[in-house]
Amino acid sequence: MDTTALPSWNEGPARQALLDFVQRVTTVDGPDFVQPADRIATFDNDGTLWCEQPLQVQFFFAHHRLEQLAAQDPSLKQRQPFKAFLERDMAAIHDAGMKGLFEVAAATHAGVTEDEFEAIARDWLSSAKHPKLGRLFTALAYRPQVELLGYLQRQGFKNFIVSGGGIDLIRAFSEEVYGIPRDQVVGSSVKTRFEIKDGRGDLVKLAEIDTFDDREVKPHNIGLHIGRRPILAFGNSDGDLAMLRYTRSGPGPRLALLLHHDDAEREFAYDREFRLSPLAEALDHAQEYGIDVVSMKRDWRQVFAA
Amino acid sequence: MDTTALPSWNEGPARQALLDFVQRVTTVDGPDFVQPADRIATFDNDGTLWCEQPLQVQFFFAHHRLEQLAAQDPSLKQRQPFKAFLERDMAAIHDAGMKGLFEVAAATHAGVTEDEFEAIARDWLSSAKHPKLGRLFTALAYRPQVELLGYLQRQGFKNFIVSGGGIDLIRAFSEEVYGIPRDQVVGSSVKTRFEIKDGRGDLVKLAEIDTFDDREVKPHNIGLHIGRRPILAFGNSDGDLAMLRYTRSGPGPRLALLLHHDDAEREFAYDREFRLSPLAEALDHAQEYGIDVVSMKRDWRQVFAA
Repeated sequence: MDTTALPSWNEGPARQALLDFVQRVTTVDGPDFVQPADRIATFDNDGTLWCEQPLQVQFFFAHHRLEQLAAQDPSLKQRQPFKAFLERDMAAIHDAGMKGLFEVAAATHAGVTEDEFEAIARDWLSSAKHPKLGRLFTALAYRPQVELLGYLQRQGFKNFIVSGGGIDLIRAFSEEVYGIPRDQVVGSSVKTRFEIKDGRGDLVKLAEIDTFDDREVKPHNIGLHIGRRPILAFGNSDGDLAMLRYTRSGPGPRLALLLHHDDAEREFAYDREFRLSPLAEALDHAQEYGIDVVSMKRDWRQVFAA
Repeated sequence: MDTTALPSWNEGPARQALLDFVQRVTTVDGPDFVQPADRIATFDNDGTLWCEQPLQVQFFFAHHRLEQLAAQDPSLKQRQPFKAFLERDMAAIHDAGMKGLFEVAAATHAGVTEDEFEAIARDWLSSAKHPKLGRLFTALAYRPQVELLGYLQRQGFKNFIVSGGGIDLIRAFSEEVYGIPRDQVVGSSVKTRFEIKDGRGDLVKLAEIDTFDDREVKPHNIGLHIGRRPILAFGNSDGDLAMLRYTRSGPGPRLALLLHHDDAEREFAYDREFRLSPLAEALDHAQEYGIDVVSMKRDWRQVFAA
């Protein structure tokens, strides 16, 4: 066992469970050996790999885009759901939920090609900062998780993001921030139209949702994109519960982890009251469902990179 | 340039175009160098990587399953479209098209879990033989293409299958036959239901089509699954044309290839008259669209493995 691995994790049950699990599945000739091709790990993104408070990063991205569009078309300021978003009407935003948030983000990019979207997303990510923590959003990746992704990859795992957030926004930073290639990102997505103009073929984003990748849809999209049941999954809310239980239901060694945000000092402390992505059933039934709860306060030596 | 590469390809324009292209995109400091992460290659499956005559392998798979089901429930023999398939009514089958074929395959596996499907598919693939060529279907992979996949992979490419065939049937042999991991397979798929029974969570296949991955849908699904425009694409029918044109439309070096089945002696000779997957527009406009036509007769030294 590599006892120097995961230096940003405190010694304790969570780090030990990870090290033990990886050792079991990588010990050739051991009873729990898993072929590299089957070493699939899936991670939720918002609240699992990076900060999702006070609102998911998707919100700030959509808000910025809306402000730009509203400058050209002031009528947006009077139309719902845009009005609520532009005015940061928190009650309305929480009512709309994660899906409403993604719908607004989708609506603001309708008619944009995938290449244009990539440029918009990269441009925004290169300068936008978290309103409270004052860092670039991409600097809000959790250091222990980035370590874990690298550790798993070195141990022959293939890591995937399986997120309720927009798939293309995540792809704009997943390689640089997490070392996860674009094709290993699964998320919410819109329908596209293939359009040939002046002999050139491009994908144009439509406003219509293709998949909203949350709850029971996560296992479905894992089946669609990965085609193999993960042996390790990591989430932080009830939206991840189906993915965690799906992962636990296969034969052989399995590890399902849940990050509990209980660290108001270094990050945020929240669970069941966070309406956009509550953690309640998964926390209440963790033991019954075979889920290991990771405490940010107890298990992480450091939360963000220095 | 590795002149010993692709030994099952005859010397000639097609092999040369492949070797030249790979050299250009892998020459560090060259004007056309492409980062490994961007070396995405997409391949159609039926008729591009393996034989699709007299009917796509999907047909034989669905037919076998239908016969099993009809033995339990004889009423299937009287119900369309099953009746036509069971009776091998060629006119009706050609009328139904590739989509109809996939719909029958989907209907015959409704209610089956993904694990059960995998066992059914593997069992069938391990013994089912091509009616005319007398080989296992998995032995109908084209040797020059298997060589090409391996060559591209060694040159840092990530290969994907983008097929109108059922995604899970292809996944049951793609690693062993093509060296392509399950998550690098894109294809037609059905909706699934996540079901928890006795504490165990499984994906159950439904009869409803989720995506029929043909024509304009191929670029959409490349966007969804891969999130990056390929730099090389290989197809063999008009169903691949959108993928080929999408590939050609990006900046920098691009290679779009079309396999022309013109070898009645070693395989089959067909193009525009094959109603299930015709090749007409792509062939007529190859030059205009920047597509290189590969002739099986001229360009392949050997078609199948010995």
